[in-house]
Amino acid sequence: MTYFSEVDKIRYEGPESTNPLSFRHYNPDEEIEGKPMREHFRFAAAYWHTMRNMGSDPFGPGCALRPWEDGTDSVEMALKRVEVMFEFLVKMGLDYYCFHDRDVAPEGKNLAETNAIFDKIAESLQAQQEKTGIKLLWGTANLFSNPRYVHGASTSCNADVFAYAAAQVKKCLEVTKALGGENYVFWGGREGYANLFNTDLKREFDHLARFFHMAVEYKEKIGFKGQLLLEPKPKEPTKHQYDFDVANCMAFLRTYGLEDHFKMNIEANHATLAGHSFAHELAYAQTQGALGSMDANRGDLLLGWDTDQFPMDVAETAHAMLILLDQGGIAPGGINFDAKVRRESFEPVDLFHAHIGGMDAFAHGLKIAAKIREDEVLEDLLSGRYASWDSGVGEEIESGKADFESLETYMLEKGDADKNVSGRQEMIENVINRYVFG
Amino acid sequence: MTYFSEVDKIRYEGPESTNPLSFRHYNPDEEIEGKPMREHFRFAAAYWHTMRNMGSDPFGPGCALRPWEDGTDSVEMALKRVEVMFEFLVKMGLDYYCFHDRDVAPEGKNLAETNAIFDKIAESLQAQQEKTGIKLLWGTANLFSNPRYVHGASTSCNADVFAYAAAQVKKCLEVTKALGGENYVFWGGREGYANLFNTDLKREFDHLARFFHMAVEYKEKIGFKGQLLLEPKPKEPTKHQYDFDVANCMAFLRTYGLEDHFKMNIEANHATLAGHSFAHELAYAQTQGALGSMDANRGDLLLGWDTDQFPMDVAETAHAMLILLDQGGIAPGGINFDAKVRRESFEPVDLFHAHIGGMDAFAHGLKIAAKIREDEVLEDLLSGRYASWDSGVGEEIESGKADFESLETYMLEKGDADKNVSGRQEMIENVINRYVFG
Amino acid sequence: MTYFSEVDKIRYEGPESTNPLSFRHYNPDEEIEGKPMREHFRFAAAYWHTMRNMGSDPFGPGCALRPWEDGTDSVEMALKRVEVMFEFLVKMGLDYYCFHDRDVAPEGKNLAETNAIFDKIAESLQAQQEKTGIKLLWGTANLFSNPRYVHGASTSCNADVFAYAAAQVKKCLEVTKALGGENYVFWGGREGYANLFNTDLKREFDHLARFFHMAVEYKEKIGFKGQLLLEPKPKEPTKHQYDFDVANCMAFLRTYGLEDHFKMNIEANHATLAGHSFAHELAYAQTQGALGSMDANRGDLLLGWDTDQFPMDVAETAHAMLILLDQGGIAPGGINFDAKVRRESFEPVDLFHAHIGGMDAFAHGLKIAAKIREDEVLEDLLSGRYASWDSGVGEEIESGKADFESLETYMLEKGDADKNVSGRQEMIENVINRYVFG
Amino acid sequence: MTYFSEVDKIRYEGPESTNPLSFRHYNPDEEIEGKPMREHFRFAAAYWHTMRNMGSDPFGPGCALRPWEDGTDSVEMALKRVEVMFEFLVKMGLDYYCFHDRDVAPEGKNLAETNAIFDKIAESLQAQQEKTGIKLLWGTANLFSNPRYVHGASTSCNADVFAYAAAQVKKCLEVTKALGGENYVFWGGREGYANLFNTDLKREFDHLARFFHMAVEYKEKIGFKGQLLLEPKPKEPTKHQYDFDVANCMAFLRTYGLEDHFKMNIEANHATLAGHSFAHELAYAQTQGALGSMDANRGDLLLGWDTDQFPMDVAETAHAMLILLDQGGIAPGGINFDAKVRRESFEPVDLFHAHIGGMDAFAHGLKIAAKIREDEVLEDLLSGRYASWDSGVGEEIESGKADFESLETYMLEKGDADKNVSGRQEMIENVINRYVFG
Repeated sequence: MTYFSEVDKIRYEGPESTNPLSFRHYNPDEEIEGKPMREHFRFAAAYWHTMRNMGSDPFGPGCALRPWEDGTDSVEMALKRVEVMFEFLVKMGLDYYCFHDRDVAPEGKNLAETNAIFDKIAESLQAQQEKTGIKLLWGTANLFSNPRYVHGASTSCNADVFAYAAAQVKKCLEVTKALGGENYVFWGGREGYANLFNTDLKREFDHLARFFHMAVEYKEKIGFKGQLLLEPKPKEPTKHQYDFDVANCMAFLRTYGLEDHFKMNIEANHATLAGHSFAHELAYAQTQGALGSMDANRGDLLLGWDTDQFPMDVAETAHAMLILLDQGGIAPGGINFDAKVRRESFEPVDLFHAHIGGMDAFAHGLKIAAKIREDEVLEDLLSGRYASWDSGVGEEIESGKADFESLETYMLEKGDADKNVSGRQEMIENVINRYVFG
Repeated sequence: MTYFSEVDKIRYEGPESTNPLSFRHYNPDEEIEGKPMREHFRFAAAYWHTMRNMGSDPFGPGCALRPWEDGTDSVEMALKRVEVMFEFLVKMGLDYYCFHDRDVAPEGKNLAETNAIFDKIAESLQAQQEKTGIKLLWGTANLFSNPRYVHGASTSCNADVFAYAAAQVKKCLEVTKALGGENYVFWGGREGYANLFNTDLKREFDHLARFFHMAVEYKEKIGFKGQLLLEPKPKEPTKHQYDFDVANCMAFLRTYGLEDHFKMNIEANHATLAGHSFAHELAYAQTQGALGSMDANRGDLLLGWDTDQFPMDVAETAHAMLILLDQGGIAPGGINFDAKVRRESFEPVDLFHAHIGGMDAFAHGLKIAAKIREDEVLEDLLSGRYASWDSGVGEEIESGKADFESLETYMLEKGDADKNVSGRQEMIENVINRYVFG
Repeated sequence: MTYFSEVDKIRYEGPESTNPLSFRHYNPDEEIEGKPMREHFRFAAAYWHTMRNMGSDPFGPGCALRPWEDGTDSVEMALKRVEVMFEFLVKMGLDYYCFHDRDVAPEGKNLAETNAIFDKIAESLQAQQEKTGIKLLWGTANLFSNPRYVHGASTSCNADVFAYAAAQVKKCLEVTKALGGENYVFWGGREGYANLFNTDLKREFDHLARFFHMAVEYKEKIGFKGQLLLEPKPKEPTKHQYDFDVANCMAFLRTYGLEDHFKMNIEANHATLAGHSFAHELAYAQTQGALGSMDANRGDLLLGWDTDQFPMDVAETAHAMLILLDQGGIAPGGINFDAKVRRESFEPVDLFHAHIGGMDAFAHGLKIAAKIREDEVLEDLLSGRYASWDSGVGEEIESGKADFESLETYMLEKGDADKNVSGRQEMIENVINRYVFG
Repeated sequence: MTYFSEVDKIRYEGPESTNPLSFRHYNPDEEIEGKPMREHFRFAAAYWHTMRNMGSDPFGPGCALRPWEDGTDSVEMALKRVEVMFEFLVKMGLDYYCFHDRDVAPEGKNLAETNAIFDKIAESLQAQQEKTGIKLLWGTANLFSNPRYVHGASTSCNADVFAYAAAQVKKCLEVTKALGGENYVFWGGREGYANLFNTDLKREFDHLARFFHMAVEYKEKIGFKGQLLLEPKPKEPTKHQYDFDVANCMAFLRTYGLEDHFKMNIEANHATLAGHSFAHELAYAQTQGALGSMDANRGDLLLGWDTDQFPMDVAETAHAMLILLDQGGIAPGGINFDAKVRRESFEPVDLFHAHIGGMDAFAHGLKIAAKIREDEVLEDLLSGRYASWDSGVGEEIESGKADFESLETYMLEKGDADKNVSGRQEMIENVINRYVFG
């Protein structure tokens, strides 16, 4: 049975290819810095966008053509979607996938039935994983769509909702473990507030922390070895979300003694909604030892919402790959395409064009990043720029030998600081451009 | 000698007054919740805006009429400005002022001379403080204007600049202590980066932390009892500043073990530049036990830079005062008008109109906040809304008795969570409006 | 039959009332400047938000409790909704309503059937209008929800879609006329582009103009006397919409000779998404003689999408009412609440709280505006500020007597311009605050 | 005499060059589509940024090293700067320059003296133009820096200021003509408002129009053949500027019958501040026949002010060049680098790196655009996409044969519109990426 009969497996044809259904840069087994491309990226498709996004927006319903859909949210339909998804993954050459529990399995009429349905779908996912060798990068529970989460999940004013969310995450952790998931993600879409006047901020933070401590305890109890990940986002759907950006997450984790148990799943479009560049969030997480995984996509900075476009900007992917190479890789995390085709791109083949574009942009970015590293361009730049810290007063400060008094004495004698040197920003931009644009 | 001969001391005349040079709400000795207004606010004027802002902007030089200025940055001029400033403070009925070292005292030709000039001006400030009873809310060092700080101060790539900044802060801490300053502020205007490619993020954060540890050590050594404060701001002048928002500051402080030594000086316009409301930043800092002081002003959300307008929106001041009343006051911090008259308001009397507006907006906001508290409007709302947490499963979660397993058992039995109740956001807005607008 | 049995007709109880289901300011027959409040406002409810918004957002389905809904989009349900809507209108004391064709009537299986259904519902609307005296402020056709409009309506790349849209607007103009609608609105939600590379901008503008010319011709042919209105919005759903702001609309209308046939329906939240204040868009439209009607709501300037909150900011409604009073009223336009309850406010009674808040905010704003006018505060300010234009060189310039040469001669002699006077912005803000906040 | 002794004339060395002081793409005499590169671009340097920007920002004074400056604004210094500027232009291989009157010539103590100084500097500019063959792309008058313009120039509330501005523009038109300037630009930096309450919007628009009519009359009187250009910008320095974007300018021009006399000088960073892409503003102006010239630079979309960075994004320059090629060139306009080196790039050589980057980005973009055109990629895409408009009902609509009635008849018979085809946005992005990034 084939759902994408018009598309063959996407193959690498090299940079000169004009075949739109081929890779021009992504060549999974080609080694870069001694590691095959596929291992650098650990590319995943998102079940929600690939299988469940029908293209609705606030001004119109879905218009995607998905011939396999029967218009229901039945268990049968859910089982069929597993087949479709894996055919897509195989044809795209994607090694991983990610899901929310509710993407793959519909709810039943109570929690017990919901869990039973989830188990049934999980079996089917397991079978497909075994058949194809495709793996689960991470699982997560959808704690934001069902109306019960209207006021939040673990930060709901309704304690019962916390309890339900706890039961749901418990189950999802179990299923993720059973499927060999390498990470588990928490995205707190409705953990935040819409109105500060009816919100007890401190109490909600305490609840959120309690929830995460329970998750850590249960994870350890069942021996789930995957990495726990928080996914920062500043707003949307909620006016203000508690996981605003990486630093907000780190402040929270450190406040509640959770920092050893979580890393970050960083999304490009969430970064820009928070007023940061994607590279900033990656680099900042790296300084915290918390760069865990990546939700690859792209926002439109002239629009104020999460557009989740496919990442096509090679300048940006090259920068991201520089950071990943610098930390020696992203595993056990990966690069998940949390991206959706535009509503106007409503045919199945558009899913292929979109993922090709994203995978090629990262592959091209990787090659550029490796070349920059090979030429030691930035290394030389940084070592020169910070040279004053490697000896003399700089070395004394870094080593803890200096204090305000010793530095004042030093400076009173000297009168003023040594002259600065130009930051050469435009020259650096030119150098980067040489690598990125040729 | 009088520099503002056209203005008498500003007096309280009550809400019906149409005298633009009177207070309609700020009545310093009127008690609200058993405390005189002046103690609630601890209002301060900013030396930089009041005395040093001449109205320049990126497209034109200053055009403020300041008849006392002689066009120089001499020590004599600096001494005269002290007199002008204190006449202004007295006439405005402001109990505090704040300064950067370089606002009050110009630099000399080397550090030693610079320090000597600063001492000389400090004597004059001391004399005026004694004469008028006006106090120093906080001092701070300007580590951003001088070209030596072009690449940052403690995060400069030039180690000598760190040393200079250390010497400068040492001196400013001493002067602040000598003048009885009740706090000391760090605003890292150029502590950040313009270009991530030429920046060693981790090394710069380490330097920043080293600097703050030195400051804490020196503060303790000299027995300065004031509160140390960080002032978050996301950007401007730098593309990305390390003290982005309160949470970013807290993540930093907690990472480097500094969280017990610093609180926050929160500025309204900095909050909005970071994508937060002013109230959010105040309330969030409060949950961290870190709400130290307030830089009162207002941004224009349709403009993308720090406009530093005077705070005139009573809805916003009322919300801020609710938070301050809730934590029992702002002392030893205060409310500093980090605000400047518009360039088009270039006459000396505009300084009075502006501060009257800001002080009255806070006084009006305080009266509204006290009335809301008296009526227990929000208290009732919150206690009802979170009632499910006070017993049953909510109480078990909060007390640590519940875990994922017990909650799953509970919910499997129950099937689904109890129904939610409407958040009543529009009704709450109506209630708040009744207090704010009448 | 009653759908809102828990709510009685909302009555005016005066500013001191603490009954949340009463008006504190809106007193429909109270005269302000010699005209009853209801005639100043001509308040309308929006059928789409009031009846059809179920609270879905991009991260969750609707959660509104609407006991009358049967979960279908049937004709029977549509007929029942007419009853619900009019009960709501009557209880709220709203004199007008507005609709899109598809809010009131579902589509049939082809255009003929669709039109027949629309006629059937229109009969029911007509009957309710007669029974209650409530009138139709404006009608409009939904040219954005159905997937056929995925690439636009009159600017679609598919000519057939233009034809369909033409037929749909033709029908909607007829129904609007039949129901006595006083205006007809065009909102081009998908008239714009998502990607400039696949868009022929000039051709699409030409089609848009052709469409409007056809509408004008048909309106005249059938003798529809209502005002045609364009509603500007910069983006969402489309990346870039052609009716970006009032000025963009005016440029378009003037380019194609349509400026005599259209005025503007200005929405507050659309104004701010375009980078303007609501007051700016109103005042600018007024200078163009094009201020036709108002979609009253409020955005959240910290969020980047159309939040369509109810207008509760009295400072803003007062400013809007100053502009409306200045132009002698809004008729035949009105003030339509294009606003929706927050998703968290999901009970039917929230619809009442929300509209009460909006109507009271406008009523309060009107009283404030009338007082400012009575005191001639702004009048005096403006006449003083522009006095130099009433005689001398100013009068010569305005009357056309001066040219570059005469002005150079004048200024060479004089040497420089007369001194400027402070704009007194903070004083003006204080004065406005005195009226707005008391 | 040489002011840039460390830099030789910048030469084209080809894409493989790693010499940072060479062009890798800009090869002035290389022909693209049969025209030398230099004629495609007509590159200009901006006198204000190149000679007068010392790197000040709102938080610090200038820190640029410019050894030729003597710290004064004397006539002698102004004459010396002319030499420096032309040495720079020659070494950079720039064919044009642009100036404000006040960039090149300081003010005297009255208008007559100011004009005399301007004449003296103009002689020196003329001599350098003759010596080097470099030409004046456009002149403009600075109507925003001097405090007399604090409330605007032609829209000032002070009629005398209008008169002064008229005299100043008259002189600047004369000097521009004398120097063979090919265009004359109006940028209304302070033509707008800070506060709507003290602003008579209609009267100010009328004055603005009167001013432009005078300029047109005087231009014709003296036989100046250059193109008049308006430069849109939405805000900064003023809260709201009247020339918000291209459409706002067109609405104004068409309202006052000025549309035949002005085209647009479009700046990239101004476009994004107004919520548009640069390409949008260019393409929109083209539909209005008003694309006159280009201020090339780049903003930072995460910052809210005009950063005026050098344009380095080849994806963006390629798009811009596609539009310019499509309209057959930019002459008599050109590409003016309205861009400044970052404050951190404070050495003279940074001016060279910056212009090299900008010129190379445009040259690279031109080559990419020409290749896209040669392959007819977009042409094929557009002709296919709009094919339904070339015959049948589309042709009838475009030719004016159809009306609402005929289209309804057509559609009633047909039942619904023909199916849409996917917009293929991701595939198009991939194709563009193939050309841009290789």
